Amino acid sequence: MAYLQSMPKAETIKLREKHVGAACQLFFRSSPLKIVRGIAQYMYDETGERYLDCINNVAHVGHCHPHVVEAGRNQMSLISTNNRYLHDELVILAERLVKTMPEPLSVCFFVNSGSEANDLALRLARIHTNREDVITLDHAYHGHLTSMIAVSPYKFNLPGGPAQPDWVHVAPVPDVYRGKFTCPRDSSSEETLGLMYAGEVEKICEDAKQRRGGVCAFIAESLQSCGGQVIPPEGYMKKVYENVRNAGGVCIADEVQVGFGRVGTHMWAFETQGVVPDIVTMGKPMGNGHPVAAVICTQEIAKSFADTGVEYFNTYGGNPVSCAIANAVLDVIETENLQEKALRVGSYLLERCESLKHKHSLVGDVRGRGLFVGVELVTNRDERTPATAEAKHVVNRMREEKILISRDGPDANVLKFKPPLVFTTHDADRLVDTLDRVLGELDGGRMPSGSIKLEVTVTPISDNMEKSNETAVKTSIKQSIKSM
Amino acid sequence: MAYLQSMPKAETIKLREKHVGAACQLFFRSSPLKIVRGIAQYMYDETGERYLDCINNVAHVGHCHPHVVEAGRNQMSLISTNNRYLHDELVILAERLVKTMPEPLSVCFFVNSGSEANDLALRLARIHTNREDVITLDHAYHGHLTSMIAVSPYKFNLPGGPAQPDWVHVAPVPDVYRGKFTCPRDSSSEETLGLMYAGEVEKICEDAKQRRGGVCAFIAESLQSCGGQVIPPEGYMKKVYENVRNAGGVCIADEVQVGFGRVGTHMWAFETQGVVPDIVTMGKPMGNGHPVAAVICTQEIAKSFADTGVEYFNTYGGNPVSCAIANAVLDVIETENLQEKALRVGSYLLERCESLKHKHSLVGDVRGRGLFVGVELVTNRDERTPATAEAKHVVNRMREEKILISRDGPDANVLKFKPPLVFTTHDADRLVDTLDRVLGELDGGRMPSGSIKLEVTVTPISDNMEKSNETAVKTSIKQSIKSM
Repeated sequence: MAYLQSMPKAETIKLREKHVGAACQLFFRSSPLKIVRGIAQYMYDETGERYLDCINNVAHVGHCHPHVVEAGRNQMSLISTNNRYLHDELVILAERLVKTMPEPLSVCFFVNSGSEANDLALRLARIHTNREDVITLDHAYHGHLTSMIAVSPYKFNLPGGPAQPDWVHVAPVPDVYRGKFTCPRDSSSEETLGLMYAGEVEKICEDAKQRRGGVCAFIAESLQSCGGQVIPPEGYMKKVYENVRNAGGVCIADEVQVGFGRVGTHMWAFETQGVVPDIVTMGKPMGNGHPVAAVICTQEIAKSFADTGVEYFNTYGGNPVSCAIANAVLDVIETENLQEKALRVGSYLLERCESLKHKHSLVGDVRGRGLFVGVELVTNRDERTPATAEAKHVVNRMREEKILISRDGPDANVLKFKPPLVFTTHDADRLVDTLDRVLGELDGGRMPSGSIKLEVTVTPISDNMEKSNETAVKTSIKQSIKSM
Repeated sequence: MAYLQSMPKAETIKLREKHVGAACQLFFRSSPLKIVRGIAQYMYDETGERYLDCINNVAHVGHCHPHVVEAGRNQMSLISTNNRYLHDELVILAERLVKTMPEPLSVCFFVNSGSEANDLALRLARIHTNREDVITLDHAYHGHLTSMIAVSPYKFNLPGGPAQPDWVHVAPVPDVYRGKFTCPRDSSSEETLGLMYAGEVEKICEDAKQRRGGVCAFIAESLQSCGGQVIPPEGYMKKVYENVRNAGGVCIADEVQVGFGRVGTHMWAFETQGVVPDIVTMGKPMGNGHPVAAVICTQEIAKSFADTGVEYFNTYGGNPVSCAIANAVLDVIETENLQEKALRVGSYLLERCESLKHKHSLVGDVRGRGLFVGVELVTNRDERTPATAEAKHVVNRMREEKILISRDGPDANVLKFKPPLVFTTHDADRLVDTLDRVLGELDGGRMPSGSIKLEVTVTPISDNMEKSNETAVKTSIKQSIKSM
């Protein structure tokens, strides 16, 4: 069935090109999707075509969950005003969130986006430590605000990005597959790698201590998302936190993409690493699409902020509608056991993806926690050569199969799976079976030890490439496949 | 009637103190309001008590307007996802907003808050001009983000505020009542004052041109809000824009508080000043309480941004629910002729406030445009001594009369009226009649030429004063009043 639209898709595209900044990029740019309906793990285009959504970590409890919609609708009909007035939804949400946190994390600030949350976190850290230097991880992304791009190598390292500020120090990302230190992942070597990567942060801390009297903060996603679904090695975060605190800094866990039970074993991804941050930020899934986010910190840090005498006022932050919706999301996570489901379905998905490694030489690495999974494609396993063009091709082919996945990482060669938590093992099967088939089209199911034929016929496709070029390269890929 | 609550008010307060940052201040801190319901220009507390809302410029078309609630609810049930997918609500909103703008302003970026909008505006300005220096007005407030506090003297000039960055230049606020240059407001002198104030910006521009090669941007609210409801003199903005552009800078009009028809004569406050900005930001009223905001700029500026090749992605920015709600707000402004109403009711309110000047010596100045009105209280008209304590007393007494107003400005002595645009002349009468009575309690309706008795018996009440002190001062005010 086709859905009602205000205008044909061509008109939507025309108006968008005319009146929306071109820096706001569309997914599948040469043939973008018009999405008009969402239900649970599915999205529908204007023709009624249904897509399995394997990447929308915002629609956490499923697109348009009726309990969440109802909560929003009810509260919108009653009152939505600012937090200079008392409201029960706000304090209930604060108490519920605090209950999910380890002991010293007990004070909330409500904001509208993960970017706003990270900005406030850094501001709190500055005020509390009275220091300036911030340590961030390579390829990290913490938000679209000026202050966040400053600590996001994912952005400032782009050719057209701004300069890296002198108060920002970039530590190597603890990526045991492609990072500065690598070796096969087993329990004995992982701890060693963790210490080696943590040593890099220690070096920055020591230097900052000597030159600048210490550091202000270490900010990191508990599992790096845009950077390529990276799982830090055992022991890494513990040692880093120790080093940062020794240098007078506070530790900020950015849970914007990975929080709220996605990792399965815990509510928050930092818990998988055995650390207790000083400040935690959360966003995306918090309102299942509604703009709501939060910062949770210790009493001491909140007190330093209040002691400045400068009021913190965020017009929409903590408004009753945003809080009612966030409370409803927590309800659903609890009543539908979504954290446990993320563990169960995520483990199954990971296991099935692992099996692809034995079938397709393109699959270089498979990693994940719960429903946060990455499949890194390489054209040569020994060299770990990023299969960037192939990853792009796979994402496009999967879309033809009505499955939405994306790719990221510094080489844009890591397939990302981070579906709504209502994702089922059946969905996992469909995803992996289809991926298996698409990878098979590329490598014919063979397991060559070196590079595959496709590699030499295409150049990596940049996201900023002209559409005409893109089409040319695509055609070239298709021809290569046919000739295989 | 009393409304259903999750907990008694005392419990709400207790939980808030425990789990919400103390830097988030409550209105009427010693006895805060718990607001559980809003209808049009009214808010209701948990006991069913009704308050006339004269300050909520966010609930622009009236609290819980059914058309807006319906739009939000409908879209929430259908789909809310990010703008990497096409959606009609987004492009329709973009086209409608652009239609309200003068010609070169035609490209939109959607974000979640006025702060995010101003941050992006400054980022666009930096990228477009490749310059750093920003000129802002004294007492200006542009948002709660790190980058915005940097250009907000309202915040960074507080005792506990951060340092003013070296790239920020503060020009005197063109306040003809209390600013650097003042004289009675009449058409002949106003233009002179406008040029004198603009000359201050010119000096900054000349200096920046010589020392730093030019300026990046001038950012100003078209009418200064937090700074004390300031209306710039005729000709000021035109001359400033000329100077800034001569120095290579772009002009940013912050319409977050004053846009969307509030000024009555025009949709945007910058239009009252005969200028065309390069970048316009909007927020608060845009979603009638829903977190949605936008930046509109010229094609050239948008192109400079796109040319960096760095994608701008804002997770919730321009999601279908936010856009549907913003479209519904525009519907209501149009169908209920709210801009025209703001002009009619605002003019009436201003006229009635003017009449208070002839009755109460405390009223030093009355100014406004549409439903954006300020009444500045002074203890001595000749000296224009700020009546800070009296303004606080008035706000509290009005609350006892079930009318919500607030005060602001560098001396916190300017009573602010910026109600939802559904405010009626009847509401204006009730507001001014009650204010008349409350001011009469303070000055006995007398018109002394110098200071009034109250002034010497109280010290200004700081917002950061302990509650016990506050009560003591209040008692002292009440005793002073009784003894008059």
